[in-house]
Amino acid sequence: MLDTSESKTTSVVRAISGSVETTPIWLMRQAGRYLPEYRKIRERTGSFLELCYTPELAAEVTLQPIRRFDFDAAIIFSDILVVPNAMGRDVQFVEGDGPKLEPLELGEFDSLDVNSTASTFEPVFKAIELARRDLAPQKSLIGFCGAPWTVATYMIAGHGTKDQAPARLMAARYPDAFDRLLDRLVAVSADYLIGQLKAGVNVVQVFDSWVGALDELGFQRWCIDPTAEIVARVRHQFPDAVIIGFPKGAGLMLERYVVGAGVNAVGLDWTVPLSFARDRLHQHVALQGNLDPLILQVGGLALDRAVDRIMAALGDGRFVFNLGHGIVPQTPIAHVQQLVDRVRGWSGALT
Amino acid sequence: MLDTSESKTTSVVRAISGSVETTPIWLMRQAGRYLPEYRKIRERTGSFLELCYTPELAAEVTLQPIRRFDFDAAIIFSDILVVPNAMGRDVQFVEGDGPKLEPLELGEFDSLDVNSTASTFEPVFKAIELARRDLAPQKSLIGFCGAPWTVATYMIAGHGTKDQAPARLMAARYPDAFDRLLDRLVAVSADYLIGQLKAGVNVVQVFDSWVGALDELGFQRWCIDPTAEIVARVRHQFPDAVIIGFPKGAGLMLERYVVGAGVNAVGLDWTVPLSFARDRLHQHVALQGNLDPLILQVGGLALDRAVDRIMAALGDGRFVFNLGHGIVPQTPIAHVQQLVDRVRGWSGALT
Repeated sequence: MLDTSESKTTSVVRAISGSVETTPIWLMRQAGRYLPEYRKIRERTGSFLELCYTPELAAEVTLQPIRRFDFDAAIIFSDILVVPNAMGRDVQFVEGDGPKLEPLELGEFDSLDVNSTASTFEPVFKAIELARRDLAPQKSLIGFCGAPWTVATYMIAGHGTKDQAPARLMAARYPDAFDRLLDRLVAVSADYLIGQLKAGVNVVQVFDSWVGALDELGFQRWCIDPTAEIVARVRHQFPDAVIIGFPKGAGLMLERYVVGAGVNAVGLDWTVPLSFARDRLHQHVALQGNLDPLILQVGGLALDRAVDRIMAALGDGRFVFNLGHGIVPQTPIAHVQQLVDRVRGWSGALT
Repeated sequence: MLDTSESKTTSVVRAISGSVETTPIWLMRQAGRYLPEYRKIRERTGSFLELCYTPELAAEVTLQPIRRFDFDAAIIFSDILVVPNAMGRDVQFVEGDGPKLEPLELGEFDSLDVNSTASTFEPVFKAIELARRDLAPQKSLIGFCGAPWTVATYMIAGHGTKDQAPARLMAARYPDAFDRLLDRLVAVSADYLIGQLKAGVNVVQVFDSWVGALDELGFQRWCIDPTAEIVARVRHQFPDAVIIGFPKGAGLMLERYVVGAGVNAVGLDWTVPLSFARDRLHQHVALQGNLDPLILQVGGLALDRAVDRIMAALGDGRFVFNLGHGIVPQTPIAHVQQLVDRVRGWSGALT
C-alpha cells in the first residue's frame, strides 16, 4: 500500500486535484487488441478471464501501452465482470461474441454470495502490486469496477444487450428486489475498490457504461444512488481516494450525476458538448474525456482538429485527456502516437 | 388535399397549436405486431414492403388501432426505408432480423436517383387518401419520413447497427461527400412529406432515431441542419404544416434541436427529464411523449404512476401523449387500454 504523499505525486491525481502542469493522457482499453504485443500474449493465454486472473500476465499487458506511448496512467488489466464472477456466477468470454453469463433469475438475487469473493479478487490485487512496482512513480495506476446497474444488466440478460431491456423490465417489475441486488453489488464493488487501493492503485474509476436507457427516476435510483454509496464506503476507508465516475450516455442526467454521485472527476462520452462540460460540470468535478474513438480510428486532420477543440475548451485545468469510450481494435497505432503528440504539444504551449 | 380549416379541426393539430381541451394520445408503432388483427393481415401478405405498398392493406392496418383504442391520431403504415427504396436501393425486411439493404459505397453517393421516386411513393399517397377518407374528421392522420442521418445509417451499413459506426466513420472520413448524400436525402424526403400532405395527412413527423451517438458538431451538421432544410422546404409549399421532430437520444443536444430545427413539436424519448422538458423546451415547441415502452409492457401500478408523472408535468398544454419510442410487440393489449383510460381520465379532470 502506497502512502498518501507518494500517491499524490502521480500526474493524474494532481490534475484531478487541480494542480496542473501538463494535461495527463490515458485511454480507456489502452491495453487491448489494437496492440500487437497484447495480441501476442492473448494468443498464448487460454481464456480472457485466465489472462485477468494471472497476475504476471495481467501486470504485463497493463504496462505494455505505457512502454509504447508513455501514457500518464496505466489501468489495471481486468474486466467489470470479475465482480459477478466473484459472487459465484459463471462468466465466459466468447471470442467475437462478448461475455456470456448464466442469466440471473429473480429468485437468486438474495442468495448471491457476497462473502467469498477474496479468492477471485486476490490475483487482481496481486497484478496491481506487480504493475505498481514496475510503473514509474509519477505514473498513476488506475483500478476500476463496473457500477452496479451496468454489472446487473449483464447478470440478468446473460450477455450484452442493445437497450438493456431484460434488466429494465426486471427493475420495473420488482423494484424492491432489484434494490437488494444492487445493494449486494454495491457492497462487493466497494470492497473490491478498497482492496485495489490497498494493493496500490492511485485512482479508481467506476464504469457505468449502460445507463443511457434509464429514465429520470431509474437513473437516480439505479445509477446515482448506488454509485454514491460505493463512493461513501470507499471514502470511509480512504478519505482521500480519487474516484472517477463514467456514466456513459448519461445525457441530460449528467449534471445530476456529478452533483449527486460524489466522485472527484467525471468521464465524458464523446456526445457531451464541450461548452456544457465547461459551463455546467467543471464547477463540481474534474473532467476526463472525450474524443470519439472513431475519430482516433480515422486519424489525420480530423483527429488533430478534434483534439484541438477539446484542449481549447477544457485543457486549462482539472482535466485528464481520454477517449469518450474504449479504443476500438481497428485503431492504427500511428494514430495513437499522433494523439499523444498532439495533446503533449498543447501542454507544452501552456507551460 | 384537405383545406387548412378542415385540417385544423384535428385534435393533435389543435394541441400542438396551443388550443387544448383534452390531451390527445397516439403511440408510435401503434399499428403493429402487438395487435392480433395486424398479425392476421401481415400473415397473408408477402413481404413487409408489399404491405406498405398495397394501399388498401396499408390503410386498413393504419386504422386498426383507431378502431380498437379510439386514439386521437392514426399514423400512416409505412417505413422510413421507403425513401432509399425510392432512390433505387434494394430493401428487404428479414423476419426477426430487421432490414437489409445493399450497403451504399462512397462512389455511389452522387448517382443516387432523386428524380424517379414517384412510382414508389404513389401507393403510400394512395394509402393516405384511403385512410383519411375513412378516418373521423376530428382524428389526425400523421405522415412521416426518416431524417436523413438515420436513413443514411441504414443505407451505409446495410442494416441496423448498435452505434452507427459505418455511417459515423464515413461521415468523419468524407464529410463533403457525406453532405452531398444528405442533401439528396433532404430533397427526396421533403418531396415525400409534401406529397403526403397533398394526399391528406394533417401532421408529419420526422424520425431521427439514431442521432444519440453523434458528437456536438456532427449533431448540428447531420441532424439539425438537414432537418431544418426539410422543414423549410415543406413550409415553402405548406406554410402552416404541422411538423413534429423526433431526435431519439439527442440528450444534451435536444435544446439546440428544438431551437434550430424549426419543428412545431418535439418528440421526447423516455430518458428526457420532465422538468427539463417543461422548463427548457416547452417555451420553444409543443411536446410529445414520453412513456417508456417497457413500462407499458409491464403495466399495473408502474404504468399508472408513470402516466400520472407525465401528465402532472406536461399535461396542461401544447402536449400530445405518446411513448418515448415504438410500442414493443410483447405489449399486452389490456395495458394499452389502461394507458388510454388513464390519460383520458386526466383530461376529464382538466376540463
